[in-house]
Amino acid sequence: MSLNIKDITIDEIREAIDERRNEYLQELLNEMYPADIAELLDELNLEEAKYVYSLVDKEEAAAVLMELEDDVRERFVNSFSTTEIAHDLIDNLDSDDAADLINELPNNLRGDVLSKIIDRQQAQDIADLLFYPEDTAGGLMAKELIKVNLSWHVVTCIREMRAQASEVEHVYAVYVVDDQNVLLGLLSLTKLLIASPRDKIADLYSPDVISIKAHQQGEEVAQIMNKYDLVVLPVVDELGRLIGRITIDDVVDFIKDEADKDYQLMSGISHDIETSDKIWELTKGRLLWLIVALFGGIIGSRLIANYEDQISINPEMAFFMPLIAAMAGNVGVQSSALIVQALANNTLTGSVINRLFKELSVGLINGLVCSVLLLAYSLIFTPSFALSMTVSVSLLSVIVFAAVFGSFVPLALHRFKIDPALATGPFITTANDIIGLFIYFMIGRLMYGLF
Amino acid sequence: MSLNIKDITIDEIREAIDERRNEYLQELLNEMYPADIAELLDELNLEEAKYVYSLVDKEEAAAVLMELEDDVRERFVNSFSTTEIAHDLIDNLDSDDAADLINELPNNLRGDVLSKIIDRQQAQDIADLLFYPEDTAGGLMAKELIKVNLSWHVVTCIREMRAQASEVEHVYAVYVVDDQNVLLGLLSLTKLLIASPRDKIADLYSPDVISIKAHQQGEEVAQIMNKYDLVVLPVVDELGRLIGRITIDDVVDFIKDEADKDYQLMSGISHDIETSDKIWELTKGRLLWLIVALFGGIIGSRLIANYEDQISINPEMAFFMPLIAAMAGNVGVQSSALIVQALANNTLTGSVINRLFKELSVGLINGLVCSVLLLAYSLIFTPSFALSMTVSVSLLSVIVFAAVFGSFVPLALHRFKIDPALATGPFITTANDIIGLFIYFMIGRLMYGLF
Repeated sequence: MSLNIKDITIDEIREAIDERRNEYLQELLNEMYPADIAELLDELNLEEAKYVYSLVDKEEAAAVLMELEDDVRERFVNSFSTTEIAHDLIDNLDSDDAADLINELPNNLRGDVLSKIIDRQQAQDIADLLFYPEDTAGGLMAKELIKVNLSWHVVTCIREMRAQASEVEHVYAVYVVDDQNVLLGLLSLTKLLIASPRDKIADLYSPDVISIKAHQQGEEVAQIMNKYDLVVLPVVDELGRLIGRITIDDVVDFIKDEADKDYQLMSGISHDIETSDKIWELTKGRLLWLIVALFGGIIGSRLIANYEDQISINPEMAFFMPLIAAMAGNVGVQSSALIVQALANNTLTGSVINRLFKELSVGLINGLVCSVLLLAYSLIFTPSFALSMTVSVSLLSVIVFAAVFGSFVPLALHRFKIDPALATGPFITTANDIIGLFIYFMIGRLMYGLF
Repeated sequence: MSLNIKDITIDEIREAIDERRNEYLQELLNEMYPADIAELLDELNLEEAKYVYSLVDKEEAAAVLMELEDDVRERFVNSFSTTEIAHDLIDNLDSDDAADLINELPNNLRGDVLSKIIDRQQAQDIADLLFYPEDTAGGLMAKELIKVNLSWHVVTCIREMRAQASEVEHVYAVYVVDDQNVLLGLLSLTKLLIASPRDKIADLYSPDVISIKAHQQGEEVAQIMNKYDLVVLPVVDELGRLIGRITIDDVVDFIKDEADKDYQLMSGISHDIETSDKIWELTKGRLLWLIVALFGGIIGSRLIANYEDQISINPEMAFFMPLIAAMAGNVGVQSSALIVQALANNTLTGSVINRLFKELSVGLINGLVCSVLLLAYSLIFTPSFALSMTVSVSLLSVIVFAAVFGSFVPLALHRFKIDPALATGPFITTANDIIGLFIYFMIGRLMYGLF
């Protein structure tokens, strides 16, 4: 069972490091899972972390390295020489992890590290992977896999698998290929266990295999693995030849990252930040949208300035300005968020016209309920009939407009291949604020003229 | 390879159904994966869907059923008699899927269906699972698994596995237990393939196995599987006895659902809705928060009414009201979203005081930048020095306040075991709107007195 590092304080471990109590530390590390060791290293300073890492069991060291926080790993790896990286760090890594690690190095060091890797086959695999953009199937895949030839018998197959298996940590699938390495199907390990040594692979394998081409997007990988409940997905080249496989754990990270990105965009955060980042990082990630919203607010203030005379005569119109702006913003965010989520989950059906018509209907119902409530309140509690009519008619118009506009913008962005999530958050709120206030004063002028 | 149903129009399939062209349809269905057949059924009406489903290959029918959209499946299942559900639908399902399906039935039918299941072992397994709340490890697990006894040799093990494997579709792990069924470790299939028949399991297995107790929350399951990159996680009872296993595909759905829920809460949507839902569903899911925001707006309007005299004298103060309210809302959402995300990903570190102090610093920097920009603008473009001072000092105060308040609320909710995501979206925006306007008018009164 895992030793929870919370039972032992970080100070106790620091003390052990200072006193170089290697035996104690090694015993501790042997009891811990790689992810827990990585959590410990994340907490230590660079010197301490390097010392502890040197005591980690060789076989676990690679897993520990990949479990470190991205920024910690980057600093950690850069503190080693290129020879140390090539010989000590990369040695036990799977090809996909090794490629990710080399991608994190400064440009000028990459070739150097690659040339110093002792296992030339591994170096070749890594170089192949570096060729694919990070967010494609090729960029997510690893080269380590187990494959057998269609023409083999079970006995040959098991002999070959023994040779290949030493390289592959977990075997989730055995792929069947022809002499040209074209992917033909899958061989279930259970069937292989049950089979007799003289059975033919051709009689045992299943030709139903879902694969993906190396250039396809990470998003498509996630969608396919999710839709077909796959744990591992083979990657093929344009000729259908098997070149790698993607496991679900890499895709879970991808799905989480995508969801986090959309969440942050909606909350007005422009790039990936976490609460644990430095104050300056946190500030930068948030300032951009605030300045955009500030300019929106200034435009709004100039719009209102056009109605200064009206406000002087009917100051009560100012009471409901924030209400109108806020409701416009809220409705707009609701509509755009639903569209963004549907686009992300690939569940958007029906034509654009249908969608907008549906939003119009939802906006009308919500608008009617809210504006009747507001009319009742304002008739009772405010003295001016013109004001009551203005606020309730404006609220209805603004809600209907914001609902349709909030749906339209992400759909339009998606059409032009721009991330629709940009439409959520401060952008849609600010735009709806301004347009909402404009509608409010237009209707106000009309109503105060009428009543 | 999968036949993409988009190549054949839905109308062509409808025609084939009307003309009862069973052979054509069966050929088509044989070419399709369960997830694709489910997508087709989602598009058809109930009568058509039942007809097509009756033509689906027996072995694939269960998978098709589980891939249907939740609401489609519910209507679909409820259109069968309890005997049909017990005999035809549940027969080929894994125990976890069968339990989910029975959970979707009306209360009064559940016992009836359970009693009609022919395989009594399956009925017992399902009844066991129904006992666990849906969002716990017990509610996520399935009972089908492969286990071997520590005292066995490889030859016994393979014989027993052959018997067990017929029940289990994909084998990702072989569990090693003692005579009391207590989970001891894992046996790698690769090692088993390589081993000689007389090797002992005790010499082959790995005692490093991470497990979870049945009562633990689904969130913990997701965290553990994600942290340790697991594809399958064994579930044990309080005595450590192996009672089931959870596969990653169920957890991916769980992670996605959780992320979607937080996203919807932030966008002001009170329960799980999708763009494809009926207009009335969409309206209901959005109306609650709009009414809350409406009441917030009304409170805001009463607050502003207190400053009616000031607005009559200085109508230019009204120009910047929406700007102040919007900035307060945006900053508050940024801060609360970061906390909610950190809580969801379990990455929040440091004490509450530290967090709030960090927010205070970020708020100060962002506030200073924005208020200096606004001061410059207003000094140049607005005639009143008092107004310039009011808007820039208010903006600074409001941003700092909203940053700290936006962090504090979700932390407080979390402390009291309330979902912190409730603090994002309309709630924090509305509260910050009101408080922001209050700060604005307080400072306005002060500044217009001074200058």
